[in-house]
Amino acid sequence: MNKVFIGSSVDGFIADKEGKLDWLHSIPNPENIDMGYASFMEGIDALVMGRKSFETVSRFIPWPYEKPVFVLSNQLESLPDGFTDKAFLLKGTLKEVLAKIHAKGYFNLYIDGGQTIRSFLSADLIDEMIITQIPYLLGGGTPLFTELPRRLEFQCVESKIFLNSVVQNRFKRKPR
Amino acid sequence: MNKVFIGSSVDGFIADKEGKLDWLHSIPNPENIDMGYASFMEGIDALVMGRKSFETVSRFIPWPYEKPVFVLSNQLESLPDGFTDKAFLLKGTLKEVLAKIHAKGYFNLYIDGGQTIRSFLSADLIDEMIITQIPYLLGGGTPLFTELPRRLEFQCVESKIFLNSVVQNRFKRKPR
Repeated sequence: MNKVFIGSSVDGFIADKEGKLDWLHSIPNPENIDMGYASFMEGIDALVMGRKSFETVSRFIPWPYEKPVFVLSNQLESLPDGFTDKAFLLKGTLKEVLAKIHAKGYFNLYIDGGQTIRSFLSADLIDEMIITQIPYLLGGGTPLFTELPRRLEFQCVESKIFLNSVVQNRFKRKPR
Repeated sequence: MNKVFIGSSVDGFIADKEGKLDWLHSIPNPENIDMGYASFMEGIDALVMGRKSFETVSRFIPWPYEKPVFVLSNQLESLPDGFTDKAFLLKGTLKEVLAKIHAKGYFNLYIDGGQTIRSFLSADLIDEMIITQIPYLLGGGTPLFTELPRRLEFQCVESKIFLNSVVQNRFKRKPR
């Protein structure tokens, strides 16, 4: 199962026109509810992300993940020091890297980062999407979705409103 | 109050790559539930749409609306015969046409049609959006949303799932 858990604007952007993410956290959240993130993370075995997302999260202190992170990059020769047992570089096509990850016993995967999500969607390799819609129209930015060779059919199986404002919809891929 | 009530794909398209709409009605709906359409129509005083949407609905037999339809077009000289007391041509800027409609006593307006919705959003003239998401990624087509000069903030005040598949979210504009 390849799963997406991401915040987006109502018009489908994951970063604004300046590449900023601050609007994702601009709705007052006095009790700091996590909108299902911890529970989602419990259910996954590993994360899969691209080089750019890895560069962003590699600056976080402390390292934010308890699960292994697979970094997809055909450019990088190796990951920087300090991530042994945390992050692992993988090369190849999506099917090849998935085969390598499955061979290590990880099957429930958190597919993260805009470029990686769009690549997985283009290859129809996403089984579930939990999309937390911040109720803004940004009118531009980095899109969550991408052109597709053909239509992909999901079902919305759950919908929750948080903070009287944000809506989180869970979509499951229909049997292919 | 200017309201939108529209179906869209999860990736934000209101028509597919070929301009088709059949996918909007492709989820089995044996009891033909209307997903709130009749109730929404009861609450509005009039419709506002552009020339293209009018051309489409003008072919429907019987005429589908019990409320007056205002057709925005700076190109048309007049509407075709047969729509007296049904549809009314209005010219001018959005603010001018709204002033004319309000002067006739119509205040709760159903803003319909892709181009008209996008124009109203660009001018920050939409107060409520009820968006029924058909759980497909189309990967291309006619977008519901558009570039905006600045971010528009809404709140998601209601969310409903229909047919175990479709999610309808209601967004209200935050006080400007």
